Amino acid sequence: MRWFILALFLILILVTGVSASEAVGSIDIPHIILGLAIMLLAAKIGGEIAERKFKQPGVLGELLAGVVISPFALGPYLGFNVIPGEIMPISPEIDLIGQIGVVILLFLAGIETDVKQFMKFGKVAGLVAAGGVIVPFLLGYFAILIFYTPPEGEPIQYVALFTGAILTATSVGITARVLKDLDRMNSEEGTTILAAAVIDDILGIIVLAMVIGVIGAATGVQQLNFIDNAWNEIIPKSTSTDIIWIVLKAAVFWGLILYLGLKYSEKISSVLSKFQTKGALMVIALVIGFLISYLAAYIGLALIIGAYAAGLALSASAYKEHLIEELTPVFNFLVPIFFVAMGMLVNIREAVTIAGLGVLILVLAIIGKALGCGVVSYFSGFNYHGAMRVGTGMIPRGEVGLIVAYIGLSSGIIQQPIYVIAVVMSIVTTLITPPLLKSTFAKGPEKGWKEKTV
Amino acid sequence: MRWFILALFLILILVTGVSASEAVGSIDIPHIILGLAIMLLAAKIGGEIAERKFKQPGVLGELLAGVVISPFALGPYLGFNVIPGEIMPISPEIDLIGQIGVVILLFLAGIETDVKQFMKFGKVAGLVAAGGVIVPFLLGYFAILIFYTPPEGEPIQYVALFTGAILTATSVGITARVLKDLDRMNSEEGTTILAAAVIDDILGIIVLAMVIGVIGAATGVQQLNFIDNAWNEIIPKSTSTDIIWIVLKAAVFWGLILYLGLKYSEKISSVLSKFQTKGALMVIALVIGFLISYLAAYIGLALIIGAYAAGLALSASAYKEHLIEELTPVFNFLVPIFFVAMGMLVNIREAVTIAGLGVLILVLAIIGKALGCGVVSYFSGFNYHGAMRVGTGMIPRGEVGLIVAYIGLSSGIIQQPIYVIAVVMSIVTTLITPPLLKSTFAKGPEKGWKEKTV
Repeated sequence: MRWFILALFLILILVTGVSASEAVGSIDIPHIILGLAIMLLAAKIGGEIAERKFKQPGVLGELLAGVVISPFALGPYLGFNVIPGEIMPISPEIDLIGQIGVVILLFLAGIETDVKQFMKFGKVAGLVAAGGVIVPFLLGYFAILIFYTPPEGEPIQYVALFTGAILTATSVGITARVLKDLDRMNSEEGTTILAAAVIDDILGIIVLAMVIGVIGAATGVQQLNFIDNAWNEIIPKSTSTDIIWIVLKAAVFWGLILYLGLKYSEKISSVLSKFQTKGALMVIALVIGFLISYLAAYIGLALIIGAYAAGLALSASAYKEHLIEELTPVFNFLVPIFFVAMGMLVNIREAVTIAGLGVLILVLAIIGKALGCGVVSYFSGFNYHGAMRVGTGMIPRGEVGLIVAYIGLSSGIIQQPIYVIAVVMSIVTTLITPPLLKSTFAKGPEKGWKEKTV
Repeated sequence: MRWFILALFLILILVTGVSASEAVGSIDIPHIILGLAIMLLAAKIGGEIAERKFKQPGVLGELLAGVVISPFALGPYLGFNVIPGEIMPISPEIDLIGQIGVVILLFLAGIETDVKQFMKFGKVAGLVAAGGVIVPFLLGYFAILIFYTPPEGEPIQYVALFTGAILTATSVGITARVLKDLDRMNSEEGTTILAAAVIDDILGIIVLAMVIGVIGAATGVQQLNFIDNAWNEIIPKSTSTDIIWIVLKAAVFWGLILYLGLKYSEKISSVLSKFQTKGALMVIALVIGFLISYLAAYIGLALIIGAYAAGLALSASAYKEHLIEELTPVFNFLVPIFFVAMGMLVNIREAVTIAGLGVLILVLAIIGKALGCGVVSYFSGFNYHGAMRVGTGMIPRGEVGLIVAYIGLSSGIIQQPIYVIAVVMSIVTTLITPPLLKSTFAKGPEKGWKEKTV
């Protein structure tokens, strides 16, 4: 196989080297197709090596493959260049395809969820999520106040608030993927982690809204100037500091989707069964998933929150198994693109230059979640091993944290070093979680839940 | 079911009506997700109605659904608006996703092809393709010279050349889809149509290159000014009038891909079998398809020509059935987006205003292919029914014709009426082919090939 991969890469390098500079027009479809091919090839080679050589979840290999082919490493030889003026070093079109992948990932995760289990652990998950937001926020806030020397004109108070906000939201995508790889999605720990990570995304957005509110009130600026589209995904332009309103919306949205989905699951199945042309059933389920994702974004939540809710709503349908089977190839095609793209965001060169504070924030990010979520889990009915698993599963940060960092950077509140630290923190927490989570599941009894305490 | 669909559409209208105007930033991911959801929903409703109420191929329903939700009809109520300054009334991102769909459609068509059959009919297909290019070109050319009164400053000679070029290329996508729906992909007629349509795309590009060469030589302009990305897909910016070179490239490319694919089919299977993680095999096959598609675009052919060649090369692999099974859900998700998008390009309002010439060109477009391909087929070994099927299967025009029309429009050689006629012609030939093709397959003996003459 080695010669084949080598030959392929050689051809790629030759081909892309010649033509990468010729791109003209707004969307150059052949180059995007080429980019997708390279990313998918890298993902699958990385995945194979991780799973078969190192017995690690495939997603870890995909992320590292992304780091290797990023514009900051081998990327320029493969046609992936840093885009001048853009924070994201991947093209918006590839980002879009990756985002569709995450929506499908969370949608499928929702469908595969055992809803009864989910309901049973909803309260615990709420507590775990709260613990995992408060502890990392405080750790990040005080770390900056104590250890950071800001450049001239950068108000340390605001940097501290932003850094705290960056550390709050767990990235549910990576954990969902690892739990799926380990086949532990429906364990007590799995359900708690997924539910907590989703709640936590909402809490992360609330924290961000609070931070912006506080800074806005102090500086007299009512709204920071956000034109970035990533931001549009999370909060509509009209977002005020009205936090209660966000919480209410999220709760009502979730409650409504779940209630309707579960109450009318037979009705939904019968609507789905009306579509009898080949493949139509799965497509209509996807339509429902996309519409609810959009609704979530529309009322100011993240797309993925809607996707997960939609999946949950369909998880009681009679077509559950059929949908899982049909969506899996779509998942296999699109989801690796997202994880390779996450890896490609790492600027390894910058990462080397900011050692001290970076390591500190990173350690706090890890301890914050492990502590905040682990301790709460332990007192909510998990045993030691279960608590370790939940704490570990909540470590990864991703989309929301990166977006908070980006907002901080683009509004001038934080500067490059903090931004780079945020990115590196997201990546490292994402990288270390799969092996850690796998090892916590390998240790101790299979059951992490003290059944009698329920 | 009716109330459900109605309710969904009502919600959509409410939701999109409020927010459609608020889009900010270069790519608004939630709106694209919403757009995809609406398009897929329309596709599946259209498909169900076409297949079950009217016993027609599903793709016809998808196209008509596209016409209904186009920016020129109900689109504005659903968030699809005509984009100022853009010829295509759909967003470039949705176009991209549709284009990925066509690549997968042709790739799958290639994999499903019975290669022995394909080789056997290669010569016949070449003749059929030539007949189907020459006859429509001449008909279109003389129709314009005789019946068209150009506005001041529009040289009729060039308009005639362009109109001829617009009529040459059969759109293989629609026919492949209908043949798949009818399960006749591997019949003698099916193989001939697919092979001829592919060859014919290449011939269409050659004709375009010739037309541009002739006009360039006459006007002294060496190269028309093409900044459109659709164009990038078909011909690289350096395309000269060197026609022999294009033919040579295409022939060598096809020969090489097919030769390598068939000669090393066991080797390819063994490489594929190295990827053992879940779903990796299908993804690696897709990577091969994407890379070969890119190579085709890189050397100046269409993406879809490469995709079809790549599929053919994999069609002798031991994993053929596995690949078909795994790619089908991806097909089901992405391909309807392309066909709905094709429907959305129709401006029904403009179409009404240009009756006479439009109908003439349309009739010539149909007769041209039916005659050019049908007669050649008949003398190449098909019986009457087989020749009718091949002639009918070659009627639809699509991507290449539209791109030729667009180039004519953007370079100022043709004006709105001819452009609109080209678009309407593409759509109508596409719309009428599925029912016609289905009825020709229903009539006469199952075998359309006079076996003894081979």
